[in-house]
Amino acid sequence: MYEAEIVLRHAGQLLTVPPSATGGAPDDVGLIEDGALAIAEGRVLWVGPTAELERHVKVTGDTGQYDLHGRVVTPGLVDPHTHLVFAGAREREFALRAAGRPYLEILAEGGGILSTVRATRAATEDELVRLALPRLQRFLTYGVTTVEAKSGYGLSLEHELKILRATYRVGELHPVRVVPTFLGAHAVPAEFRDRKAAYVRHLVDEMLPAVAGERLAEFCDIFVDDGVFSLADARKVLGRAKELGLRPRMHAGQFNDHGGPQLAARLGAASADHLEHVSPAGIRAMAKGGVVAVLLPGAALSLGQTPPDARRFTEAGVRVALATDLNPGTSMTENLPLMMTLGIAQLKLTPEQALRGVTDHAAAALGRSGRVGTLAIGAAADVAVFDVGDWRRLAYHFGVPHAEMVLIEGEVVWTRDRIRKVAPRRGSRKG
Amino acid sequence: MYEAEIVLRHAGQLLTVPPSATGGAPDDVGLIEDGALAIAEGRVLWVGPTAELERHVKVTGDTGQYDLHGRVVTPGLVDPHTHLVFAGAREREFALRAAGRPYLEILAEGGGILSTVRATRAATEDELVRLALPRLQRFLTYGVTTVEAKSGYGLSLEHELKILRATYRVGELHPVRVVPTFLGAHAVPAEFRDRKAAYVRHLVDEMLPAVAGERLAEFCDIFVDDGVFSLADARKVLGRAKELGLRPRMHAGQFNDHGGPQLAARLGAASADHLEHVSPAGIRAMAKGGVVAVLLPGAALSLGQTPPDARRFTEAGVRVALATDLNPGTSMTENLPLMMTLGIAQLKLTPEQALRGVTDHAAAALGRSGRVGTLAIGAAADVAVFDVGDWRRLAYHFGVPHAEMVLIEGEVVWTRDRIRKVAPRRGSRKG
Repeated sequence: MYEAEIVLRHAGQLLTVPPSATGGAPDDVGLIEDGALAIAEGRVLWVGPTAELERHVKVTGDTGQYDLHGRVVTPGLVDPHTHLVFAGAREREFALRAAGRPYLEILAEGGGILSTVRATRAATEDELVRLALPRLQRFLTYGVTTVEAKSGYGLSLEHELKILRATYRVGELHPVRVVPTFLGAHAVPAEFRDRKAAYVRHLVDEMLPAVAGERLAEFCDIFVDDGVFSLADARKVLGRAKELGLRPRMHAGQFNDHGGPQLAARLGAASADHLEHVSPAGIRAMAKGGVVAVLLPGAALSLGQTPPDARRFTEAGVRVALATDLNPGTSMTENLPLMMTLGIAQLKLTPEQALRGVTDHAAAALGRSGRVGTLAIGAAADVAVFDVGDWRRLAYHFGVPHAEMVLIEGEVVWTRDRIRKVAPRRGSRKG
Repeated sequence: MYEAEIVLRHAGQLLTVPPSATGGAPDDVGLIEDGALAIAEGRVLWVGPTAELERHVKVTGDTGQYDLHGRVVTPGLVDPHTHLVFAGAREREFALRAAGRPYLEILAEGGGILSTVRATRAATEDELVRLALPRLQRFLTYGVTTVEAKSGYGLSLEHELKILRATYRVGELHPVRVVPTFLGAHAVPAEFRDRKAAYVRHLVDEMLPAVAGERLAEFCDIFVDDGVFSLADARKVLGRAKELGLRPRMHAGQFNDHGGPQLAARLGAASADHLEHVSPAGIRAMAKGGVVAVLLPGAALSLGQTPPDARRFTEAGVRVALATDLNPGTSMTENLPLMMTLGIAQLKLTPEQALRGVTDHAAAALGRSGRVGTLAIGAAADVAVFDVGDWRRLAYHFGVPHAEMVLIEGEVVWTRDRIRKVAPRRGSRKG
């Protein structure tokens, strides 16, 4: 019998979310009533009904013990698509779009992404760190414990490396786990205007080797759409990324379907993201290739787009993840549970699918199914405790924060201070 | 020169929002840069640039002084349509609707409103007070200082009075200003099934006189739509309400247009609410009658409806207000700034119109333009301080709380404790 370092008792509902990587079904959230969780060495040691806890794990005077009084426990939430590190804000553009200006038109005039590029290039690495930290903290207050973070507002060797180094530092300074993605192919920078091919060569020949050499990114992403990059560009960039050990992912079909999902599947991409416009053939290819569909209802909302119908993906056997798409242009929010609300109300996911979308399926989009986004035994002890009586209220009671306490790798990293440790009363920091 | 009890200095942007009742234009938010506000006897004493403050008001050693360090100041926000007082939750129904079940079908089967009626009837007045208080507190953390609150989950003399008494007590216990509306005509209760005419008689002959006799409501509302009440019912109920001194308002056109807006105008209603379905003639009648259009994007979102295009109203000269519609069925949220986001992104309001929609136009919907929802001199000193650098970020950076400090009638009633009073250092409670 193993000794627990921390135990949580009396979760009214504890959702383990069985990982898809080991056969977890698309609608199974692994609900345990009056649940308990035992943690040792930063991992889930045991999970089950509170009544059975001490038959399975040893609780000693050193064990940190919490009584949750019926609150809901889920795996720490996972946001698989954010643009965490940037400078500047674009509230004016939000108003322009409301007045009917199309996004691609704003982009073509040097607004959109490129205005954030100017602000981000002007910022120092320290400034970017300082700006990103409160965003991570806000994520934490919504129960989010893992956040993917893309570069892509530098668009030059110097500034992309600066952003990725800031991303690395933010992940070291803050308890939230940060998964870095290189998105040098986010837009064609002004100095390469009308010379896109030259920028793609620069990406392939100089930027990618430098990023890989410093081990600054785990994934490589590219924005395939009208006015940005083509499928042929994606083949070059993601092909080279794979050779250098970066796993591909792709912004595909946000405005038009260029066949990105099929290429994503062929390249073994972890995910294809956006997908407002995707053909049945694209969906079939994603299902066959195990590519996760990362849907971004916040961006569709901000852009006044019709959000995609998630049932097209779920019915074809594609795992659907949900993300905030946190970015200064089209989705300025860290409220990941709000994406569950939009996922259910607009994308037509079931509540179970929406929860998997911000836990296991999001983890799968980051190549981490079974490691995070689940409370399966052996997974990272990333835990969110919510002050609700039913887990479906996370989506139903929307726009407001519900998290009470968050653990990452078994450490309490955030709390509203309404949950008190019941033992040991004068414990070590470890408890 | 008058003596100030409280002064706020150095608001990066201070928005006075000139009241429409005294000619405030539909797009004017009254922006003052580096603004200051002086308060005396719970009212706005003076407002203008910080540099001019002490030329206009006397600041003494007793004046409570705050330096806002560039934060944004708006009038305390006004939510003109909520169902604040109820028991029970309906997260299961949220999932049913996501699975494609129409709301009116759920209602016809005794779900919807009627399931909340059962839970609310079973609750005591004390329980209803206890349930409503945290909702008001949540409103406050979004900068909301006035909330309309409808009855309508009792649907019998005994239980409607219980709800309205609970509403009155909540308003006494909590600093947020609560404006009560009698909505006995929210649905036909089970015991009057197939006897709607008898229920309408009961409303007119017994419930309305009792409500008016106890002075428990300022407004009377009715839900005019398929399967609920007809225009003829509305004529009877609202006509009698007017005789008894209650001002009319109306749920109109949520699912179908029955001509409610025209009747609302004829009766001198303060507002017509929902309006997903409304004819050009209905809009013209509202413009002519000065009826405020209260739009509810949270309900449209939860129901998967196409939200109304607010430009139809603004272009016709109708004042548009935005509300959460807080209710356990179709819009469970206290996040009023999120309605500004939806108002801009989906309803096509400008940021200026969206701000007026939760301040002056919302106040007008409650018959209070010039008294709340504005920082005009003489208005209630209800003030929201937000930790943003530009007021448009309230809508742009969505789903997350931005309020830092809230005053109601000149008293600091809520703060995140990051704004410190600079003088007097050891002040009285009054400061």
